[in-house]
Amino acid sequence: MRAAIFRGPGVVEVGERPDPVIEAPTDAIVRVVLACVCGSDLWYYRGESPHAEGSIGHEFIGVVEETGADVNTVAPGDLVVAPFIYSDMTCQHCLNGSTISCVQGGNFGNGTIDGGQGEAVRVPLAGSTLVPVPGSGHSDDTLRSILALSDVMSTGHHAATVAGVSKGDTVAVVGDGAVGLSAVLAAHRLGAERIIALSRHPQRQQLVREFGATDIVEARGDQANEAVLSLTGRVGVDAALECVGTDQSIATAFAVARPGSTVGIVGVPHGQVPFAQTFFRNVGFRGGPAPARIYIPGLLDDVLAGTINPGRVFDYEADLGHVADAYTAMDERRAIKSLIRVGSV
Amino acid sequence: MRAAIFRGPGVVEVGERPDPVIEAPTDAIVRVVLACVCGSDLWYYRGESPHAEGSIGHEFIGVVEETGADVNTVAPGDLVVAPFIYSDMTCQHCLNGSTISCVQGGNFGNGTIDGGQGEAVRVPLAGSTLVPVPGSGHSDDTLRSILALSDVMSTGHHAATVAGVSKGDTVAVVGDGAVGLSAVLAAHRLGAERIIALSRHPQRQQLVREFGATDIVEARGDQANEAVLSLTGRVGVDAALECVGTDQSIATAFAVARPGSTVGIVGVPHGQVPFAQTFFRNVGFRGGPAPARIYIPGLLDDVLAGTINPGRVFDYEADLGHVADAYTAMDERRAIKSLIRVGSV
Repeated sequence: MRAAIFRGPGVVEVGERPDPVIEAPTDAIVRVVLACVCGSDLWYYRGESPHAEGSIGHEFIGVVEETGADVNTVAPGDLVVAPFIYSDMTCQHCLNGSTISCVQGGNFGNGTIDGGQGEAVRVPLAGSTLVPVPGSGHSDDTLRSILALSDVMSTGHHAATVAGVSKGDTVAVVGDGAVGLSAVLAAHRLGAERIIALSRHPQRQQLVREFGATDIVEARGDQANEAVLSLTGRVGVDAALECVGTDQSIATAFAVARPGSTVGIVGVPHGQVPFAQTFFRNVGFRGGPAPARIYIPGLLDDVLAGTINPGRVFDYEADLGHVADAYTAMDERRAIKSLIRVGSV
Repeated sequence: MRAAIFRGPGVVEVGERPDPVIEAPTDAIVRVVLACVCGSDLWYYRGESPHAEGSIGHEFIGVVEETGADVNTVAPGDLVVAPFIYSDMTCQHCLNGSTISCVQGGNFGNGTIDGGQGEAVRVPLAGSTLVPVPGSGHSDDTLRSILALSDVMSTGHHAATVAGVSKGDTVAVVGDGAVGLSAVLAAHRLGAERIIALSRHPQRQQLVREFGATDIVEARGDQANEAVLSLTGRVGVDAALECVGTDQSIATAFAVARPGSTVGIVGVPHGQVPFAQTFFRNVGFRGGPAPARIYIPGLLDDVLAGTINPGRVFDYEADLGHVADAYTAMDERRAIKSLIRVGSV
């Protein structure tokens, strides 16, 4: 089959990988319909994080082609969405809701395991990993929004969830990348009354407002902190959602979080928590990779009901043959997030 | 009046301070019955943290002698317990439950404001700060337990609360000082089924078991981590309560916390959070100085009902004239926590 192959920093190209086959009774083979490029794929592309040569991509939706003998929850012909980590849903970590720590779990597109950026994927632990999408004849917009649940929207939702966003809250979202935009949408969905988005890109500001932001702060660093404190009567926000991971963005999230609140961190941290300063204000943090498998069913209901449209974060698309362009567009910041059109439903 | 005076590192002595008088209509004058020495007082004593010369001590119970015109919730003759911070309970931080960040609040015993370690205290914002103790004729044991609510038990409860301890949980408590012991009691009170105490002092192990610990780990560092993981089937604990604040204790708390859990930190951090390692396991932290004013009423109910006895942490006592001995006993680790007997009810 054709699939994106990571050759090394700066080089993702379409090549041949073996057609996936059922290897274990818990496997399923999924023919990919839509995939996309994650911000974390870009780190590999830029050489900022190591990645093995081979398969890449961990976000996809597709149609089940074949299932192993032990797979009962999905069947051939089903449209399914895959969380970015496969998991057994029976180990203690999964039962605790931490599917990303599943003792049998693993990553799609890690060089060896099939990636989403390819024509088909062997999905391990398929019965407990894949979420079937009810109905048929979904519009392309709906399919794009379902694809977003695979990682980016679940990640934005994770930031809002671990920060405890609830009805009536004032929330700040640091970062206007695809995850930050999704976090705005997630906070809005959870009932936040006021959402302050830190965004300086005009085209993202428009989307961030459509997603529910009530205020936009263009400043960065100390000026951003001051602006958010000023907007909140110097109290700070009930929840700060950190969707970048740099020293500056982490510092801002902690600075604008009100005493007693929790910073939701989903930007993989390249900075350090300003521990001593935050301790005396009782500002903590929670976060990490999202347990997407846990979140997808609830978010999927809302996508199908038309109440959220997280697929709006995709503002560039390419077919599998042009996967390299999908990376380049994001690397050059011409795209918020690139969709890859692989097959049809 | 006679009061403990902090003269500088290593020197706390009894001296004279002006008799407190009502200065604002929101003040009350409280005649101190019992006070005690906090672990944080020891930092000042050891020169590890700065402290102004003058009043010291922020934990006390006493009897109201006089109230300002605007104080309606307590009256002369009332036995009261003071949280270690005074607060207005009307600012947004107080309304959010973060009384330690009260915009009008402040510390007792900071050199200027009267300390608990003295014959009397002018309590600012007395109506919203002091908690009256119902009933009369309380036993000395009960009074000691009420005193513990002023800081140490509220702090242990804070660790358990922010870590989300709930019924049936497995909890690890790092530290067997007075706060760690209180955190064990708090976790037990909140319904934890299994409480693993990291303790290497035989006399503290006995108390920690009385407070509800089911397992004791004497090891430290990597060996402690391994022991706790082994006790929990390598899953880790649902909540780790960090009651020390050193690099090693923080590292242990994060290492034994299961994926998706929150470390409750109340030991003032002298170490750093192992951020990058914990992020991928979704282990976060919350904590800081406890909003004791919020916690005292609920804890007081349980003290008066006889279901908790946090005063057991006091294993040394002195009268005000021997306050220096109270410090020395803790400094030399002969005492877990020193009580200072000042007056009678």
